Amino acid sequence: MKIIHKINEIREIIQKEKQNGKKIGLVPTMGCLHAGHASLIKKSVENADITVVSVFVNPIQFGPNEDYDKYPRTLEADAKICEEIGADYVFAPSAAEMYPGLEKFSDLTMVCPPYALTDMLCGKSRVGHFDGVATVVTKLFNIICPDIACFGMKDIQQLHIIKKMVKDLNFSADIISCPLVREESGLALSSRNKYLSEADKKAALTISKALFAIKDGYQKGIKDTKLLFDTAMTVLDPMIELDYLEFVDKETFETVSEINSPTIAAIAAKVGGVRLIDNIIIGE
Amino acid sequence: MKIIHKINEIREIIQKEKQNGKKIGLVPTMGCLHAGHASLIKKSVENADITVVSVFVNPIQFGPNEDYDKYPRTLEADAKICEEIGADYVFAPSAAEMYPGLEKFSDLTMVCPPYALTDMLCGKSRVGHFDGVATVVTKLFNIICPDIACFGMKDIQQLHIIKKMVKDLNFSADIISCPLVREESGLALSSRNKYLSEADKKAALTISKALFAIKDGYQKGIKDTKLLFDTAMTVLDPMIELDYLEFVDKETFETVSEINSPTIAAIAAKVGGVRLIDNIIIGE
Repeated sequence: MKIIHKINEIREIIQKEKQNGKKIGLVPTMGCLHAGHASLIKKSVENADITVVSVFVNPIQFGPNEDYDKYPRTLEADAKICEEIGADYVFAPSAAEMYPGLEKFSDLTMVCPPYALTDMLCGKSRVGHFDGVATVVTKLFNIICPDIACFGMKDIQQLHIIKKMVKDLNFSADIISCPLVREESGLALSSRNKYLSEADKKAALTISKALFAIKDGYQKGIKDTKLLFDTAMTVLDPMIELDYLEFVDKETFETVSEINSPTIAAIAAKVGGVRLIDNIIIGE
Repeated sequence: MKIIHKINEIREIIQKEKQNGKKIGLVPTMGCLHAGHASLIKKSVENADITVVSVFVNPIQFGPNEDYDKYPRTLEADAKICEEIGADYVFAPSAAEMYPGLEKFSDLTMVCPPYALTDMLCGKSRVGHFDGVATVVTKLFNIICPDIACFGMKDIQQLHIIKKMVKDLNFSADIISCPLVREESGLALSSRNKYLSEADKKAALTISKALFAIKDGYQKGIKDTKLLFDTAMTVLDPMIELDYLEFVDKETFETVSEINSPTIAAIAAKVGGVRLIDNIIIGE
């Protein structure tokens, strides 16, 4: 497995692989890889001939008060994980390689998902975040030209937005959705879990518990999402600062008041200053 | 030469051509081809193995009060011109093929060039126009995967924005700039010239004459763009409704008050309700 830092170098490599008829898989990540990422890489290795894992903490998807600077960077450990699973290349460009000569983000051509999909859930408190995500994924798609690209269902709004982008802009990559991975405790795996103290982590466990309570409630016959919301609130630790807990249609991402078709219950909350997200699908 | 209407069909064709090592050239047009387009097609035929001319009147780059519905559509004649010059494929999708199921444009993922480049010249009076252009060109690039793409210097702001987009989003296509083509009278060729009455056309001739007067003035030593502007105004027919006449740096597109480096004098004006654009480069 090779680590490549330069765009032109990975382009040349991919071009040769394609000329040899190889099917290219891409797993875009911000590094600090955990078992969730590992499942994405495994999926790509199984479904493509050549797997490229990109490791890039993308500055333009972070808000001015977010954790860009302190976001964990662990390239050596990441590369080891990629190699163990059978990836062929890690593409780890610098910020200057991806955004050369950039003084301010407003100087960039951006890829902007429809407002209706970004002005909701995580997009509401992270203004511009999904423009940054769509833009860097477009860049990676243009550099790597993947036949398949694997995204995790933990970032469910991101996944939906990327699928919409691929359809709207005619990218040829097939987007593979991979299930959210949890610790045995139920906590959804996240690179940001590293920030949590022991006490924070204990409180954070109630986030997935609240979602499981929603699933239980639904399975006992409650379809009214207001009632399901209230059920979840009784479970959530009071230390947790809720950003949102919303119910949206799995296909359209429109708000759901009564569950009659597959529905996503999505939550975002801060625990000790750390923003975590999680979701569960009900009614499938 | 073949005319292809379906995205999947042209994708398959291109994939096969690429597998055979062919270099692909794209000439994006809205049809109603004239000698200006012909020069772009010729350029592609000379520089690529396979030339695709796209003919698509792109609804999302027209404003609500613009000429989308009445824009001339002359596919049969266009195809004949493409064949004569040696193009291999005309890609002529329907609006429903390019924007399936679309109810309103705000439901689309858009490619948005930086505001500083769109809130000027033509972008000022055609709000959203260049977002529509960048979006459709992205779609065409993703469908055709061209090695080169030819754009005309008549649409000089569009050319600049596309070059910026290619750089910012890492498209691999080389953008080939092709010179503006004029009638013997000096009038810049445009599909919209068809709309002009005889009287309109006579007035329209003073648009290029105004630009030539600027060039003369500069060659006689006038570097102050205010003075050059005034010179041009004495030439312009009073029937003409000026949208703008501006001087911008050829590389940065920043406003120029004194010409000390290559500068674009760009004009847009309405004649009998028909919007025409033209430009000239001075100081090279």
